[in-house]
Amino acid sequence: MQEANTSISADTVIEARCVIPVEPYGAVLNDHSVAITGDRITAVLPRAEMRRRCKAGRTLDLSTHALIPGLVNLHTHAAMTLMRGLSDDLRLMDWLEKHIWPTEARHVSAQFVYDGTLLACTEMLRGGVTCFNDMYFYPEMAGRAALDSGIRAVLGIVLIEFPTAYASDAQDYLRKGLAMRDELKSEPMLSFCMAPHAPYTVSDRSFEQILTLSEQLQIPINTHLHETRDEIRQSESKSGMRPIARLEKLGLLGPGFIAVHAVHLEPAEISMLAGLGASVAHCPSSNLKLASGIAPVGAMLSAGMNVGIGTDGAASNNRLDVFAEMRLAALLAKAASEDAETLPSHVALRMATLNAAKALGLEQKIGSVETGKCADLCAVNLASIELSPCYDPASHLVYAAGREHVSHVWVGGKLLVEEGRLLQVDEKAVARKAIEWQSRIAASNQVGHQSDHDQR
Amino acid sequence: MQEANTSISADTVIEARCVIPVEPYGAVLNDHSVAITGDRITAVLPRAEMRRRCKAGRTLDLSTHALIPGLVNLHTHAAMTLMRGLSDDLRLMDWLEKHIWPTEARHVSAQFVYDGTLLACTEMLRGGVTCFNDMYFYPEMAGRAALDSGIRAVLGIVLIEFPTAYASDAQDYLRKGLAMRDELKSEPMLSFCMAPHAPYTVSDRSFEQILTLSEQLQIPINTHLHETRDEIRQSESKSGMRPIARLEKLGLLGPGFIAVHAVHLEPAEISMLAGLGASVAHCPSSNLKLASGIAPVGAMLSAGMNVGIGTDGAASNNRLDVFAEMRLAALLAKAASEDAETLPSHVALRMATLNAAKALGLEQKIGSVETGKCADLCAVNLASIELSPCYDPASHLVYAAGREHVSHVWVGGKLLVEEGRLLQVDEKAVARKAIEWQSRIAASNQVGHQSDHDQR
Repeated sequence: MQEANTSISADTVIEARCVIPVEPYGAVLNDHSVAITGDRITAVLPRAEMRRRCKAGRTLDLSTHALIPGLVNLHTHAAMTLMRGLSDDLRLMDWLEKHIWPTEARHVSAQFVYDGTLLACTEMLRGGVTCFNDMYFYPEMAGRAALDSGIRAVLGIVLIEFPTAYASDAQDYLRKGLAMRDELKSEPMLSFCMAPHAPYTVSDRSFEQILTLSEQLQIPINTHLHETRDEIRQSESKSGMRPIARLEKLGLLGPGFIAVHAVHLEPAEISMLAGLGASVAHCPSSNLKLASGIAPVGAMLSAGMNVGIGTDGAASNNRLDVFAEMRLAALLAKAASEDAETLPSHVALRMATLNAAKALGLEQKIGSVETGKCADLCAVNLASIELSPCYDPASHLVYAAGREHVSHVWVGGKLLVEEGRLLQVDEKAVARKAIEWQSRIAASNQVGHQSDHDQR
Repeated sequence: MQEANTSISADTVIEARCVIPVEPYGAVLNDHSVAITGDRITAVLPRAEMRRRCKAGRTLDLSTHALIPGLVNLHTHAAMTLMRGLSDDLRLMDWLEKHIWPTEARHVSAQFVYDGTLLACTEMLRGGVTCFNDMYFYPEMAGRAALDSGIRAVLGIVLIEFPTAYASDAQDYLRKGLAMRDELKSEPMLSFCMAPHAPYTVSDRSFEQILTLSEQLQIPINTHLHETRDEIRQSESKSGMRPIARLEKLGLLGPGFIAVHAVHLEPAEISMLAGLGASVAHCPSSNLKLASGIAPVGAMLSAGMNVGIGTDGAASNNRLDVFAEMRLAALLAKAASEDAETLPSHVALRMATLNAAKALGLEQKIGSVETGKCADLCAVNLASIELSPCYDPASHLVYAAGREHVSHVWVGGKLLVEEGRLLQVDEKAVARKAIEWQSRIAASNQVGHQSDHDQR
């Protein structure tokens, strides 16, 4: 709360048609302005009052725009963007075993991860995403790409019980992940997350170590969980337990735990996760595309669970588009619960911002437009024909707008996207790198040359 | 087939990175060009051959683009675009009875339909849609708007058994619809369709008349059918029959019949519809948003049914975006059938083009890029960061691209969209009209002013 008579100075004031701060829930602040000083939001005030009280270095007239918190992508494998559309319309195990894993075995390297993550950051920033939670090999290179692009990132300390180019065994994964954290922990735009791949690829012993480390380092744990029915069946036949029961027994589930996907949960499991304060990363496009199923998000929300939204990797989506995921989450939950009132637009916006921030332990810093928080902001131009007329900006953001309507993006007070153009990243250089990788990967996979038919 | 040595003259030659003609199925013609003469496609040839053989008035270099048939929106209520986002997240009957019908009763007029349809045409053209099948009041005004925008349209001769501002009773609806057809039947860009609203709002007697007219005029019939479980329950308790059985008994089902929505079909009903050669207009966003359910599209396709894609109206979508519907249809069908191989990208493209054209009886004129067909074309720029890398253009069109990547659109050989800009429609005037209607509708509905919260 600012005193009504004090004057304010700010680096930038954004005058918006409306600010949707996400906190408090449901608020739409018409004709409001946001002041940014350094990396922080320093005031949110009615436009007239801001003009009266605030001296700003720069004033931005976004009078046809909605200003919202930057979107937070709660689950992705950013570097996999280099495999976007490499293989589609395939059953999960064919997709993984015949396409994704062989391609990764041939190509994944530190450079692959840097180039792929920079491509992902470019796409995400232009689509209004200001923070992403990554799970992939060579997280130090993902961190470098994030820093170079200006986006905020949560880097996974990844573990999988088989050797890759990145690491040889569980201890090697942890050693490298911890070294990565030591190297990058002073970077204000980076934080960290324990990222064991999945119950079917991580041993009890490794999970125990991960739990200890997460408590020591005070960072969350995220893992793929109950993504497919097969995963659950295999666990039952191997250990006599559903994967979630196994993790519960190991003590992993709690406020610092993020269940990624959680497509197949029984009502008792939903109650348990909600009761323990765990979060879910809902990735609807990927769950549909791999035919995994439809997560019971309506029931999760009714149980009071914290549910955020993720894109998953571009190999199974094939976009890193949180606007598309918000819309799909809102639409799917209605049909799945047979109730059109499920997951209204303000809930979708909250899932894609504050809920995801909370899951990552970042809710004090980001996820809403509030004085004192980091200035991670996204402006959406509502003046487009596709968004006309506009009775309710929140509805339009979820159901009608796309990431193409994002005009400006700030991360930590820094303007990174202006009228759709990236200011910090050399987009053309990023695109050139993508094409280089495409040639290399297509040559080794003998794809990329579609059937050529003669003119009939 | 062109003779290999003849020379060709053309008004325009489009040199594309690839042409995806839709027919034959699955073809991707890399480095091909399309020649347009008058309103027709006059050649589809490898780029080098076209350069050697063809003298063109204009040659367009679209060397980073995929060229596809213009998309066909198989079901919409175009004028309802003026009610986009007016009321969301509501149960169907609340939505209809408390919001949509009262608003229509207050506002729908000839001018409303003209302005709303022109807005819809503007949105659709910019999104690559070159033909739409409309069901709404004052179809002559929808036709005028379509003609003014340059888009191709199929106008519904609408019938509903209650009075509206447009017509007083069943006979009045038919009289007005037939007069509309007489007035507009010489327009090459317009055709017609019988459009009884739904089994629960149309009597047996009216359906019989509609069948007779459809046979006399040689035009298809489309009606909302099995959209919700309630519709089926009510029919069973009223007539002892499911709606589809009632229409079958009346003799409506056949190659000229389009079942709109068809969310709830039993396997025997799918076999019957497929066996009779009927089509389905699949509207996945609307079906999810109104919590109607998920249509069994995988089973329909397996049964050999002709399934096209529609957006429904912008009041229940809230976009007229066939790209979004293609993606959603492809994703949903995989999860619903628990098989990621269901509805691959080339099928989605076909549903949104040739299948929809076939349902409307227009498959000889439009729906594919073939010599002799009308030059209804859509170019999608694949050079964007969001579409990098690109291993498979068809995959990208369905899973990664959005309508924002549409650069050029032709209808009947006429270039209507160039680098995303509309050439024939005054976009600003259309937007101004939308805002006028918004003010009028919001004032009478007391919406459009969201809760205003003070700064905390």
